[in-house]
Amino acid sequence: MTEEKSVRLNRQWILKERPQDGALDTSKIFEQTAVPIENLTKGQALAKVMYLSFDPTMRGWISRDGYMPAQPLGEPMRALGVAQVIESKTASFHPGDIVLGGTGWQEYVVLDDAYDGPGKMAKLPSTWDPRLSMAIALTGVTAYFGMTDVGKIKAGDTVLVSGAAGATGSVAAQMASILGAKQVVGIAGGPEKCRWLTEEAKLDAAIDYKNENLGERLQELFPHGIDLYFDNVGGETLDTVLQHLALHARIVLCGAISQYNIPKADLYGLKNTKLLVEKRATMHGFLVLDYMNRSTEALLALNDWIESKQMVLKIDEQNGFENIPSTLDRLFCGANMGKQLLKLSDPPLAKNSSLIENIVMKVLSLIYRWKRRR
Amino acid sequence: MTEEKSVRLNRQWILKERPQDGALDTSKIFEQTAVPIENLTKGQALAKVMYLSFDPTMRGWISRDGYMPAQPLGEPMRALGVAQVIESKTASFHPGDIVLGGTGWQEYVVLDDAYDGPGKMAKLPSTWDPRLSMAIALTGVTAYFGMTDVGKIKAGDTVLVSGAAGATGSVAAQMASILGAKQVVGIAGGPEKCRWLTEEAKLDAAIDYKNENLGERLQELFPHGIDLYFDNVGGETLDTVLQHLALHARIVLCGAISQYNIPKADLYGLKNTKLLVEKRATMHGFLVLDYMNRSTEALLALNDWIESKQMVLKIDEQNGFENIPSTLDRLFCGANMGKQLLKLSDPPLAKNSSLIENIVMKVLSLIYRWKRRR
Repeated sequence: MTEEKSVRLNRQWILKERPQDGALDTSKIFEQTAVPIENLTKGQALAKVMYLSFDPTMRGWISRDGYMPAQPLGEPMRALGVAQVIESKTASFHPGDIVLGGTGWQEYVVLDDAYDGPGKMAKLPSTWDPRLSMAIALTGVTAYFGMTDVGKIKAGDTVLVSGAAGATGSVAAQMASILGAKQVVGIAGGPEKCRWLTEEAKLDAAIDYKNENLGERLQELFPHGIDLYFDNVGGETLDTVLQHLALHARIVLCGAISQYNIPKADLYGLKNTKLLVEKRATMHGFLVLDYMNRSTEALLALNDWIESKQMVLKIDEQNGFENIPSTLDRLFCGANMGKQLLKLSDPPLAKNSSLIENIVMKVLSLIYRWKRRR
Repeated sequence: MTEEKSVRLNRQWILKERPQDGALDTSKIFEQTAVPIENLTKGQALAKVMYLSFDPTMRGWISRDGYMPAQPLGEPMRALGVAQVIESKTASFHPGDIVLGGTGWQEYVVLDDAYDGPGKMAKLPSTWDPRLSMAIALTGVTAYFGMTDVGKIKAGDTVLVSGAAGATGSVAAQMASILGAKQVVGIAGGPEKCRWLTEEAKLDAAIDYKNENLGERLQELFPHGIDLYFDNVGGETLDTVLQHLALHARIVLCGAISQYNIPKADLYGLKNTKLLVEKRATMHGFLVLDYMNRSTEALLALNDWIESKQMVLKIDEQNGFENIPSTLDRLFCGANMGKQLLKLSDPPLAKNSSLIENIVMKVLSLIYRWKRRR
């Protein structure tokens, strides 16, 4: 047994070069490697990665220290993923358990009870669909707290969301409707995404920024201004939106994907922030990291909305270990529609299920549903 | 009597042209005129203007509709001022009363009980110095609510104020110290202003943006970042400050004087707003207009601090009707140090004084002082 394990290899994609600004050449900066899987020691478990999540914030990790230290060179690229435990030397995990956390770009991940930092792997309730959980784990929770705690959405708001066909934007926009917004408009690139927004996600309107004049459309759709703008793109879009704010507008700065992948000299300069004074408006940056201790609240709400078909999720699923680096590119050219995932493998074992756990989840879900309705 | 009054003239400076962007040519866009002073009708009073206030926000009034409609062409330029009532046909005002409000650029102003819009003239307590009241009426109240309600200053904050030698900035910076900030730094142009900030206003440090490297100085003075930035200037200064924020920093956007008087094409574009996300920071625009119903609270606090010498005020006083338009220029070239006033006349009558009013003011002052200490 031990002999056999010692030759088992774990394929990884490691970061080889650290580009600064500008577009990434993912075919050059990452390198494929394979390392032997060491024997587990006490307190560890081994899991096989099933899905990887691709998120715009990864662009920052590659280049510099920020809210997290930069991705170390020579190590597997940091990434959120879902995996199944296949061997365990800890009571925390059992073979068959589905876990979610920082798997990184590799085929196998070692879980360690001693680790308690960002990306710590946590067991997923067995009633939850791993693929769906992956799709809402980071981006859905981001949308949830961005709309509630940061944006303070309230009934009657007029709401605009950019990057609305993306993983975070599509959840944020649909949440706005569910939570009573008077009007919800999404900005996305291309007719297909816009069609999805109005026909499937049931937004009131969509603006195709690639083929329409954003300023004119905003004037038309928001004659009395925008109360709440959930921004995922930054740059020129944000600058245009600043000209269409209602009094006391709130801008939730979630991301600025239009500015992540361009040379420093080409960064867009916002010229209209002084309108924040005239409109007594607020621009509020946030990171989901600060809300991770409350993620259960968000996940249960999202789960509820999805199950009750009030919210639809779109998942863009790529496949195969070889395609990991190029899948990251999809985020920055707007190729993805909805959550960008990549499937690495099917779960090798049967999923564990516990009757008690199922009951606990149902009760928790009811409690949060009741809290939300108060 | 009536004969004599009908030939009395009221000299005015009216707006003749409406420039859009760029530097004002105050010698061209304003025109001197004189209109006869009409007989008062019931409900009116006539007051002689003593002081005029010059405020950066006037730049916006000249060019466009904003939070107030644009300054009408052919009418005396809108301005805050202090005047003394010299004739009255209303019980609201008596000859000798000192009034504060929208006098406009003219020698006499008619008060009308029927008017209840912005700039409505109000009686000043006779115990208050008219010149000092003028200096804190708009800008001091702005600083007060910007620091308290908007910036939510708290003990232990590290605070930076731009335009710190200006009317609003100098009050904001000193307030920060009074309210318990750990460190207060001001940005101003030139050694004289900086000397005043550290020696007279007792700030912890001053940065001379004309002769020092702002980024380097901020790094030096705020190694752990800025908790609260009170911004009066906008533009490149704001963009540099964005690189030195502490986690959860608050930026109070009070004004952007560096951007008011330049052509649209030369407006500075902010490139660092995406750092608001990383630092979970807030940028909050506000206008003092929204707080006018609470101005007594602010005026009493400021009065207290000035009387107890915890706060010093610097007043830049120009003189004479002829110099009104050119005094506006002083704000935009940074010539003024502290509050920019212009004296038009000495009060022609003795000031009214009321024992009851004096007592009421003392009681109010004690109440607010007690509230602040709680």
